[in-house]
Parts: sequence; C-alpha cells; structure tokens
Amino acid sequence: MHQKFIKEAIKEAEKSLSEGGIPIGAVLVKDNEIISRGHNRIIQDNSLILHGEMDAIENAKNLSHEDYRKSTLYTTLSPCPMCSGAIILYNIPKVVIGDNTTLMGAENLLKDNGVELILLNDLRCKELFENFVKDNPGLWERELAKVGNTTELK
Amino acid sequence: MHQKFIKEAIKEAEKSLSEGGIPIGAVLVKDNEIISRGHNRIIQDNSLILHGEMDAIENAKNLSHEDYRKSTLYTTLSPCPMCSGAIILYNIPKVVIGDNTTLMGAENLLKDNGVELILLNDLRCKELFENFVKDNPGLWERELAKVGNTTELK
Repeated sequence: MHQKFIKEAIKEAEKSLSEGGIPIGAVLVKDNEIISRGHNRIIQDNSLILHGEMDAIENAKNLSHEDYRKSTLYTTLSPCPMCSGAIILYNIPKVVIGDNTTLMGAENLLKDNGVELILLNDLRCKELFENFVKDNPGLWERELAKVGNTTELK
Repeated sequence: MHQKFIKEAIKEAEKSLSEGGIPIGAVLVKDNEIISRGHNRIIQDNSLILHGEMDAIENAKNLSHEDYRKSTLYTTLSPCPMCSGAIILYNIPKVVIGDNTTLMGAENLLKDNGVELILLNDLRCKELFENFVKDNPGLWERELAKVGNTTELK
C-alpha cells in the first residue's frame, strides 16, 4: 500500500522536475484514496512557502478535523520545519517519508508531537533529489543559502 | 519602535477585515524598514496555509540568509505551529507578538529554537481578533474545527 502511494508522490516530484522545479512531491491519502496532491513550487512560482507537503495541504480543501485525523501524508523527502508545523497544525497523524538521507527534516518535532513516521528508504526518491542537486548545483546552493542549511530542529 | 511596526501589522489585519477575512496581520522588518507585509487570506483566497505570518514571509522575495538573520517579524497574534516552523526554517531571530491572550500559538517551539519573543499585550490586536470572533461565531468555529482547537505544541 505504501508503495502505491509513494509512487504517486514520486509522480508529483517528476512533474515538478519537468516544470524546471525541485523534484519533491507529496500526496494526502484518506480511506485508501488520494484526496490531494502537490509538489514543490519554489522555482516555478517564485514561492518561499510552497514546498511539496505545503502544496498538497493547500490543495486539500474542505476537510474536517476528523478527515485530517484519518489521513496520511506521503512525501518523497523528509519534511522541513515549516511543513512539519503544518502537519501538526492540521493534526495529520501519519507521515510516510520516501527518503531522509539526502536531507533530514524536522522528524524529531513530528515524533515529539505524536506523529507516526514511516521511512521507506525509497531509492527513486533519493536518486531524484540527488540527481537534481548534482545537475543544478548553483540553483540548489542558492535555495539552501536562504535557509543557511537548517535541516534539523531542536 | 515596536509600536511603529505593530501598528503596520494592525493595518494589515484591518485590511483583511475589510476584505471579509480574519483580522491577523504581519510585517517583516529589517534595518528598521518594512521589507514585506501580509495578512491572513484563509477566507479571501480559500487558503489553508496563508496565515498572516506566512503571507508576509511569502511576500519577502530574494532575501539572503543574512537578511533573514537581521529581520524581525511583527504579528498581531501569537504564531501557530505552521507559522512558527516557517520562522524557524528561515532563521528569523526575533518575533514581536501583539497579543497571545485570545489564542496562544507555538511560542515554546520558537523559544526552544532560540527565537527571541517580545509580547506587547497590545489592546487593539486583542480587540480586533476578539470582536471578529464575537461578530462571526459560525465562521470562526468552522475555521477552528479544521484544526481541532490545537493551539500549543509540545
């Protein structure tokens, strides 16, 4: 089941790549169905907040608290502090992470707030992001420079 | 100095109110100048992520890590977990909060991550939000229902 949905998050990451963007994607799943999808739009939309997870959360309209409580967020890369805060705000109880070896997010914050994390160590997620960084060193360094390489939270 | 800038955040909150939205506003200040402004757009844009602080962060383009490190975010209301995560992601070192008595945000998370907080206990910030909740009980309850009344983080 996790494989099926992480593949959809990967499709979103690939869509971002095809648009010239950072290949990170996410889908929100409830009752075994995808209820929203999103991908990183930092480059395409010149955005500072539309990470893949944020885009998927933004695209999920009209959900109740109970809907969020039954949902799982699939993301190709470990969620940053902002995305983790959004996951906590909306009480999404489970996050399935494709890869956290290329970039470690705020996983401790999620765990400390009762969010269940499942790490897939998915090679395609890792490869997509690694290849992007390798192929776009200037671009990625510019993005990373904005946040001063902050990856982990206290 | 804080009074000057919180007044500008209040202007943003009032702008949101005049658009039929939730009266929460924010400004980002660097070197004693406002470099971006924003207000809650949840109602106006049918957004789930455009809180006042997020909107101000989204509107501040092309800042370097050093720019963020020199900035202060003024917000009329205590920042939620998502906005706090964004503040931490971008290494904004200081947040000036108009009011936290009507709604307490993730202030502990900010403090634990070294963000300096200054609380103004501003009556206009409190009154703006309180009057909005009183005048729009159904609307505010609907918004609050989405997050299940989560206000404070571990």
